[in-house]
Order: sequence, then C-alpha cells, then structure tokens
Amino acid sequence: MELFALTAGILGLVYAYYTVRSILEKDEGSDRMKEISKAISDGANAYLKRQLKTIAIFGAVVAAIMWIAIGQNSAIAFLIGALLSYLAGFIGMSISVKANVRTAQAAKKGLKGALDLAFKGGSVTGFTVVGLGLLGISFVSLFLYLPNKDVTALIGFGVGASLVSLFARVGGGIFTKAADVGADLVGKLEKNIPEDDPRNPAVIADNVGDNVGDCAGMGADLFESFVVTIIAAMLLGIYLENPLFVALPLLVGGLGILSSVIGAQFVKLGESKKIMKALDKGTYATTIIFAGALFFAFTILSIDMKLWFASLVGLALTVLISKITEYYTVKEGSAVLQIATASKTGAATNLIQGMAVGMRSTAAPVICIVLGILVAYYFAGVYGIAIAAAAMLSVTGIIVAIDSYGPITDNAGGIAEMAGLDSSVRKITDALDSVGNTTKATTKGFAIASAALSALSLFAAYSYEVKLTDINMLNPLVVIGLFIGGLLPFVFASFLMQAVGKAAFAMVEEVRRQFRTIKGIMEGKAKPDYAKCVDIATQGALRELLLPALLAVLSPLVVGYLFGVEALGGLLAGAIVSGLLLALFMANTGAAWDNAKKLIEDGKFGGKGSEAHKAAVVGDTVGDPFKDTAGPALNALIKVLNTVSLLAGAILAKVALHLI
Amino acid sequence: MELFALTAGILGLVYAYYTVRSILEKDEGSDRMKEISKAISDGANAYLKRQLKTIAIFGAVVAAIMWIAIGQNSAIAFLIGALLSYLAGFIGMSISVKANVRTAQAAKKGLKGALDLAFKGGSVTGFTVVGLGLLGISFVSLFLYLPNKDVTALIGFGVGASLVSLFARVGGGIFTKAADVGADLVGKLEKNIPEDDPRNPAVIADNVGDNVGDCAGMGADLFESFVVTIIAAMLLGIYLENPLFVALPLLVGGLGILSSVIGAQFVKLGESKKIMKALDKGTYATTIIFAGALFFAFTILSIDMKLWFASLVGLALTVLISKITEYYTVKEGSAVLQIATASKTGAATNLIQGMAVGMRSTAAPVICIVLGILVAYYFAGVYGIAIAAAAMLSVTGIIVAIDSYGPITDNAGGIAEMAGLDSSVRKITDALDSVGNTTKATTKGFAIASAALSALSLFAAYSYEVKLTDINMLNPLVVIGLFIGGLLPFVFASFLMQAVGKAAFAMVEEVRRQFRTIKGIMEGKAKPDYAKCVDIATQGALRELLLPALLAVLSPLVVGYLFGVEALGGLLAGAIVSGLLLALFMANTGAAWDNAKKLIEDGKFGGKGSEAHKAAVVGDTVGDPFKDTAGPALNALIKVLNTVSLLAGAILAKVALHLI
Repeated sequence: MELFALTAGILGLVYAYYTVRSILEKDEGSDRMKEISKAISDGANAYLKRQLKTIAIFGAVVAAIMWIAIGQNSAIAFLIGALLSYLAGFIGMSISVKANVRTAQAAKKGLKGALDLAFKGGSVTGFTVVGLGLLGISFVSLFLYLPNKDVTALIGFGVGASLVSLFARVGGGIFTKAADVGADLVGKLEKNIPEDDPRNPAVIADNVGDNVGDCAGMGADLFESFVVTIIAAMLLGIYLENPLFVALPLLVGGLGILSSVIGAQFVKLGESKKIMKALDKGTYATTIIFAGALFFAFTILSIDMKLWFASLVGLALTVLISKITEYYTVKEGSAVLQIATASKTGAATNLIQGMAVGMRSTAAPVICIVLGILVAYYFAGVYGIAIAAAAMLSVTGIIVAIDSYGPITDNAGGIAEMAGLDSSVRKITDALDSVGNTTKATTKGFAIASAALSALSLFAAYSYEVKLTDINMLNPLVVIGLFIGGLLPFVFASFLMQAVGKAAFAMVEEVRRQFRTIKGIMEGKAKPDYAKCVDIATQGALRELLLPALLAVLSPLVVGYLFGVEALGGLLAGAIVSGLLLALFMANTGAAWDNAKKLIEDGKFGGKGSEAHKAAVVGDTVGDPFKDTAGPALNALIKVLNTVSLLAGAILAKVALHLI
Repeated sequence: MELFALTAGILGLVYAYYTVRSILEKDEGSDRMKEISKAISDGANAYLKRQLKTIAIFGAVVAAIMWIAIGQNSAIAFLIGALLSYLAGFIGMSISVKANVRTAQAAKKGLKGALDLAFKGGSVTGFTVVGLGLLGISFVSLFLYLPNKDVTALIGFGVGASLVSLFARVGGGIFTKAADVGADLVGKLEKNIPEDDPRNPAVIADNVGDNVGDCAGMGADLFESFVVTIIAAMLLGIYLENPLFVALPLLVGGLGILSSVIGAQFVKLGESKKIMKALDKGTYATTIIFAGALFFAFTILSIDMKLWFASLVGLALTVLISKITEYYTVKEGSAVLQIATASKTGAATNLIQGMAVGMRSTAAPVICIVLGILVAYYFAGVYGIAIAAAAMLSVTGIIVAIDSYGPITDNAGGIAEMAGLDSSVRKITDALDSVGNTTKATTKGFAIASAALSALSLFAAYSYEVKLTDINMLNPLVVIGLFIGGLLPFVFASFLMQAVGKAAFAMVEEVRRQFRTIKGIMEGKAKPDYAKCVDIATQGALRELLLPALLAVLSPLVVGYLFGVEALGGLLAGAIVSGLLLALFMANTGAAWDNAKKLIEDGKFGGKGSEAHKAAVVGDTVGDPFKDTAGPALNALIKVLNTVSLLAGAILAKVALHLI
C-alpha cells in the first residue's frame, strides 16, 4: 500500500509540474506588470527566506533534542516533515506569484481564460500539498518506520509538519494583516485613495501578504492536517494491531489525490457564467468520484463496507461545513445583511451584530461534527472517526486549489490597478476575487473542522500511545488539564491579535511618514519606498514567531510532566473544544464583516463613503486579524499540541511526577 | 447546625432591616429630586412586576412537572427557592432606588456622608441576599429534607434559585444595555448632549437599567451562587454519608454572614480620602475575621484542620481574583493604557487591542482557579473543593454590599445632573461612581470565578447522584457532550448580544422620533416621554427571556436523554470550561474598554471630543453588552445547566436511551 501511495503522491506532483509548465507558457503582459509582479515575488521570497532562518534554528534544536531523547529515526523524520511542509508552502507560493500577473493579462481577453489560469495556479499549490504529503508519509513509512517498526518515525514526521505549519500560520498571518491594516488605515481612511493604489507605500507589502499568509500559510496548514490525519489513523491501526487499518489511510489518501486530479478537470465556466458554480463543479465531481473509487476499491479488496460508510461521513462533512460557512458569510445571505443593516446605526452596532452572528455560526458546524463522530463511531468505532477524518482530508488537493485561486485573483486585481490597466480588466478580476473571498471563508471552515477531527484522531492515538483506557473527568487533575487546555487558545489568540496590532501600528507610522516626507507621492510623481514596508511587516512577523511556538510546544510538556498523562489528555480535549469554537467564531465573524462592507460598497444603505460604510470598514478591519491571523493559527495550535503530546507521551509515562 | 444557620440568616436580615431604617431617615432633597427618583423607582418596579409574570408562568409549569415527576417536596422547595431569589433582587433594588436620591442629597454636604449612605444602601442588598439564602436553606433542610431524607428538596431549592437568577440576569442585562446604548448613541453621539441629560428621552430608562441589571440581577445571581454552593457541599456530604460534611457548609455560611456584618463596620473613609481604600478595608477585615472565626470554630468542634486549609483556598481566591480583575480593568493600569493608546489610530485598533487584552486576562484567573482546585483537593479531596467554594461564597454579603453601592452612586449622579444640582455634588458622585465601576468589574470577576467553582461542586454532586465514578473522555459520547457543552455559552452569548442589538435599535428609533416630533425638547421647554422608553426596554427584555431559558433547561435534558448520563457529564464540563473563559473574556474586555474611554475623557490623547475619544466610545459601546449582558448571564447559564442536570440525574439514570 505504501507503493500505491508513493505512486499517487508522485502522480500528484507530476500533475502539478505540468500545470506549472502550462502556466509559465502564458503571456506576462507589459513591462510595468512584470515589474510589479517581480516586486511582489521578491518581497514574498525575501520573507520566506528570513522565516526559514528562524524555523531552521528552532527546528535544529528540536531535532537535536529528539535525536538524543528518542532516537535517530524520529529526528530524521522530523526534519523531512518540516522540510516538506515548508516546501509545500514555498512551491505553491512561488507559482502563485507567477500566475497572478498572467491572470491579469488573461483578464484582458475575458473571464474564461482568467478563471482557467487562476485555478491552474491554485491547483499547483493544492497538488503540491497532497503530493508531497503522501510522498513523505510513504517514504518515512517505508524507510524509517517499517524496518524496525519504529512508530516514533511517523510521529516525528507529524511533529515536523506541525511546527512548520504553526510558524507559517503565525508568521504569515501577522505579516498579511499588518500590511493590510496598515495600508487601509492610512490609504483608504486618511488619504482617501482606493485599494491597491500604487501611491500607497504599503501596497506591495499588502500583496505580498496575500501570498505568504493565504497561500503559503494555508498550504503548510493543510499539508500538516493531511499528513497528521493519515498518520493518526495509521498509528491507531498499529496500536490496534490491525494491518488493514495501517494500510487503509494510505489507500484513502492515494485515491483522494487521483479523484481530485480528475475532479479538477470539471472546473469550467458554464453557460451561466457563474464563477462559484464552475468551482463547485470541481468539488462535487471530486467528492462523487472519490466515493465511487473508495466503494470500488473496498469491494475489490473485500474490506468491510462499514469502513466505507465511515469514510463517507468525512466527505459529507466536507460538503456540509462548506455550505454552512457559505450561509453565514456569503454577501447575499441574511446574516451578512443583518450586519450591514446594523452598520446604519454606527460601528458599535455593526460590531455587536457581527460578533452575535459569529458566535451563532459555531453551532451548526459543531453539531455536524458531533453527528459525524456519532455516525463514524457507530460504523467502525474510534478507528471510524480516524478514517472519516482521513477521507475528509484526502480531498485537500481540490479544496486548496479552489482556495489558492483566491490570492492569485486578489493579486491580479492589484496588478491591474497598479499597472493602470483598463477598468474592464479590473471588473473581471473583481468578480473572480469576490468569489475568492467566499472560497477563502469556506476553506477556512474546512480547515478548522478538519483540524478538529484530525486532532481528535491524534488524541485517540495519544491515549493508545500512553496506554490510557480511561481519562476520567472526575479526576481533578483531568479537570485541571481541561481548564488549561481551554485557556490556551484564548491566550494564543490574544498574543496574535496583539502582534498584529503592534506591527500594524508600526506600518501606519511608516506609511504616514512616507506620505509626509516623500514629495510628489500623492501626485504619483515620486515612487514610495515599497521595500521598507515589506521589511516592517517581515520584522513584525518574525519577531513574534518564537513565543507562540514555545507556548504550543512547552505547555503540553509542562502539564504532562507535572500532572501526568491523564492531565495532559484533559489539556488536549480542552484545547480541541475551545480551539474549535474560537477558530470558527473568529473566522466566520471576520468573513461576515468583510462581506457586509462589500455589500454596502455595492450600493446598499448609502454605498461607499456613507456613514454605514465607515462603520462597516471598522468591522472589516477588526475582522482582519480575526479571520486571517488568530482564527487560522488556532488550527495549527491544536494540532501542534496533539503531535507534541503524542511524541512526548511515551517519555512522559515514565518520568511524570504525578504530584497527587 | 441548621438552627445556627437559621439564626445567622435572620441576623443578616435584621441587620439589613436596621440599615434600611437608618437610610429612610435621611433627607430626600428637593421636590425635583423626589420626582426623578420616583420616576426611576416606578420604572424599575413596573419592570420587575412584568418580569414576575413571565417567571411565574414558567415557574408554575416547571413546579407542576416536578411535582408529578419527582414529588411534592422538591416542587415546594423549588417554589421557595424561586421566590426567595426573586425577593433578594427585589428588596435590594427597592432600597437602592430610595438610597440613590438620599445619596445625592448627602453629597451636598460632602464625600463622607454620601459614601456612608451609598454603602449602607448596598449593604441592604448584600445582607438580604445572604440572609434570605441561609434562611431558605435551613428552612428547606429542616422541614423538607430532614423528615424523609429527601435530597430532591435541596436540589429543587437550588433549581428554583437558578432559574430566577437566569431570568434576572438575562432580562436585567438586556434592559440595562438596550437603554444605555440607545441613550448614548443618540444623546452623546448624535445630539452632543452629556450623559444623564434630562432632555434625553431614554435617560430614566438608563437609570432604571442600572437598578434592574446591576442591582436586582447581581443580587439574584449571587443569591443563587451562594445557596447552590452550600447545597452542593451538603449533597456531597450526604452522598459520602458523612454527617459532619453535611453540617459544615451551614456553619461556614453562618460564620460568613456574621463576619461580613462585622467587616462592614470597617468601611470608613480614612485620612487619605481614598474611596477604594475605605471599601477595601471592609473586604480585608471580613476575610481576616472570617478566617479567624473558622479557625476558632473548627478548633472548638475538633474538626480536622485540613478542612480549614481548604476553606482558606476559597478566601484566597476571593482576594486574588479581585486583584487580577482590577489589574486588567483599572483606569490607571497598563492594560487600559494600551487600549487608550490604540484608540489614537481609530476604533478598529481600539477594538483589536481591547479584545487582545480581554483574551489575555483570562489566563491569571484560570491559573488561580486551577491551583485552588489542586490545593483544596490536596487537603480534603473533592469535598475540599466544595468547601473552598462555600467559603468563597460565604463572604457574598460584603462583596455584594460593595458592588451594589455602584448603581446607587451612578443613579445619584444621574439625579444630581437631572435636578440641576451644583457641580460640586456631581463631582462627589462622579468620584464615587468611578470607584463603583471598578468594584463592579471586580465583583464580576468574583461572581464568574465563584460560579465556576460552584458549578464544579455541583458537577461532583451530579456524579454521585447518578452513581458515576468515571466519566471517560475516551468515550465518544463524552466527547460529544464536551463539544455540545462548549458550544452552549457561545450560542447563549450570541443570543443575548443579538437581543441587545435589537432592543437598542428600537430604542434609538424611539429616541430619534421624540427628538424629531416633540417640539422644544432640545431647549428643555418640553418634557420627553420617559415612560415610553422604559416600556420599550421592558418589552425588549421580556420578549427575549424565554428562549435562552429553554436552551439552558432543555439542552441537558435532551443530551442526557439521548446519550446518557456520561454524555451529560461531558456537557457540564464543557460548559463550565468554555463558559468560564467566555465570561471572563467578555466581562474584562468590556470593563477595560469602559475605563479606556474614561482615561481619555480625563484628558489623555486629546480628551473628550478628540478622534481618540470617538474611537474609545465605540469600544465602550461594544463592551456594554459584553460586560453587562452576555458576560454575567453566562454565570447563570453554567449554574442552571448543573442544577437542572442534578435534578434530572436520578430520573435520567433510569430512562436514558443510551443510543450506542
């Protein structure tokens, strides 16, 4: 089964490679467009390189500790996991910054070509993520796990992927929002110049942010969810001593990639010219093909059909969570209308209503997850939950493709604006971008829900690892763990919001300074110092990387060491529940605020420049760190907590103090 | 021991009675002042009467069901609990609206007399709450529990208190913030008239709100925390078959009242004229006297000193939580300064920074609670946690006295403004009110932390009640319960924020209408229609009462029925953790925003009317439903969930479906 997965992983990468070639063939447009694209690409690369340094130092320390404390296999696997996670984000982003300018150029000729190109660009990220993921797992499984049946190799791989995804989410999230908030506060509110105006010194940093946050960050996040979920299911199989259970996740993952490649071909603009429909076709086709492929494979290999039903639960969740998120965040929906209406009485009511919607929006996804757990468990026990999670994440390829299409069109719009292209071009990229905002929100819903399921699988694996058959909530140590675990997402989110605030503040000061000191900047005669703004966002992001990473890595170790493995189990459960809720709340509130602002900009309640619009801009700005920094980083947090605990579990069982 | 508690309870009430007499002797001031005071008092009474109707219907249905399903004792005890909880809020509030005008009058002569009177007014609420509480418990224990050892009588009493406190918190919270937000949005922002200006049609409603929300709501809430905590500890004693453990909570509660009565005498303005110091003296004196009294009593009765140490944990938490809350919310603190600084770049950064502070502020209280649980458990097991909670809540008398002093001074300031008293009077009431805002915030911290401990005691009692010795988090049903429990506070808070938004919207429309249609209103020639605004707030609050109450009562029943008692245990734990965090976050964020605005009004960053001030007003307005509606109502929610589960536990154990 490893070989099948290896092949499927390579196939995914080959598909990504050919897609890259077909993108690079396309026209890059005018020199001005090339120049802008290069500035974005340079900024993004510069950021990722400096981020790599921080990661490398942290990673080397962790690897060294692992080598000494656990052994060589886990340390090597850790480095592979970290490297691939980084690469998944890096490759996707590198193509993204090449696809953006070509999409802007294609938009000159019409919607169809532009959509096609932007989606191809997204596909590269999507299939690189899953291709590298499956390649990595099969490789580690074949050469590091199987020879000595050393499970710490699999766990080490997961920890490596988790840590990098945490860095990518935290760093990328701070970068993108510091730049965005900084650019908007001075540009839109103080200087009254439009979004993406080349006179704004932070405009390049803003576009770089889309790539390092939405593209590289999401890529690393879902790479990690994908691999740790498959690993968690394999571990359960190993602990349950069931060889089929060990092999099955690889089969599911491989079929998921193949189905996604086929499904991606269905993304085509129909007669109705509806962009969302074109993308939806890809998701639905993949889901149906995947369900069929699983059925076929399970029949041929005579695998118990109960497992097929369990995997369907994962697919159902994928579709349901997307639809629910769409309901709460789509511009045409009633929730967004409520927020826009509340903007009429000012920013305060916009904010109160927005948060009311966001808090409410947690209910349906949680209930779906709860029902999913029930049904999957009914069919195949704890392993059923793990295989449902694996099936859910096996369609990551197409989901990320549709998501990463967003920042490409966002950038294409920016390039069109800055290069002064015809307004018809901007209209096309705007239409694409608006759909991109929705897919960004729905993918976040997917990423959060799948992170929760993935964390639950890891949690189950943890309990087997430390040989616990009971984590009793009537034990005060478990209650303590539960409280501390519940607390972590709040502290973590606070930290990130604060970091965005600080970095954005520095950005505002810098942009104001440039407007003040560079003469002729407002008339478009002098060029602003874009690089300086990119630099400020980079520094802001990197300065804040270490502390949240230490919080995530050390808290399970400290709690486990002081209070034992049961308390650590409590911590994990508390963090999963509170992290899931807080992440859903923050992501959905932010997306709904964003679209409430867009709804008003479309002309509702006075349109642009009205009091309602000003109020809605405040909500949108508050929503930025909600949806693009803290919310997504919480996914990474709950997974890191679980992978680190899994790794530490075996050691902890021996050395725990057991204070009471 | 019941007789000792009965006596202490009566003593508390006698003290409250004599305090009332000494308040009523004082001068009510001019006719204009009397008239205003009467309008506030009429509005508050009208609201409570209409609220009573809703409660009566709901209560009668619940009582009837209890009578049939469980028996006569529990139904009667339920009605007594509900009635006393209502009375505790009602009596306190009735005196509050008489003390306000007299405080304004006393302020003409100086700070000392005004402080004295306002604190006396607060003491009435404080000692009515604990007096009625202990009276009720001893009565129910003597006449309904002891004759047949019928524990459902004790539980029924707790459920009655819980339900009314939920209604009082939800209804009062919506009323007060609908009026406040409505009055501020039109008055301060649109018409540029000061707070409490008699030309504002919503001004009376705003002052009524202080009484029904901050006074009656807090009174009912802490009445309930007090009684259910003592009952939970008694139940544990009953289930553990330890007669000392059954009697001890009554002893602790009784000594708590006596110590508080003595401690209250220490509240006196010192040479430094610092109001906060005068109030702090009361808390510290009570704490020390209480600790000494417990030591003395435990020695005489030869009770194991380990239990004394456990009860000290509760007292330590009281002091610690207050100090932590003060740190994050006090006007002079660094957290508030950060928020005020962020206001310079606009409302969005004020909001982001405020929420970052609020999320961070959950850490220290949770860690204190966790350590408290550890230490109390170390000394006396699960019962140690229950007795720590009982000790913490036994000083409720003095805590509520200091808290209820707040709305009285707030009202006194309003009356001074509306009656056109000399500005020196307003200066004194403002100084009192500013301290009142801090005590309001710290009491909220106390109420939240004690609610969590109280809920934990109930949770332990629940496990004994349904004879569970294990609630295993590796059981998927428990995980499901945990998710649903974690979700409830979010949905509940969303519901309340939405309700405030709706009611405030109606209020804004009405105030605008009056300004538009009543001629001469801005010149002070025509009188606005105050009653209409009171009516709108009343309707808004009452309309929204039923749904959250049903959510709180039905969700444990449904989950327990469908998934069994273990899943219900998971639900309770999830709700306690997520409710505690969300309540702390919302209460502290709101209080910090409030004081950031006040700091700017004191002249920082441009003072009143500056851009920073406008930004801070937005934060303050968003914070209103955070700190005064949703935050406090979450306390009530987690306690209702636990008392209802306790009641249903015995029945559920028999009829649960156990789906899996």
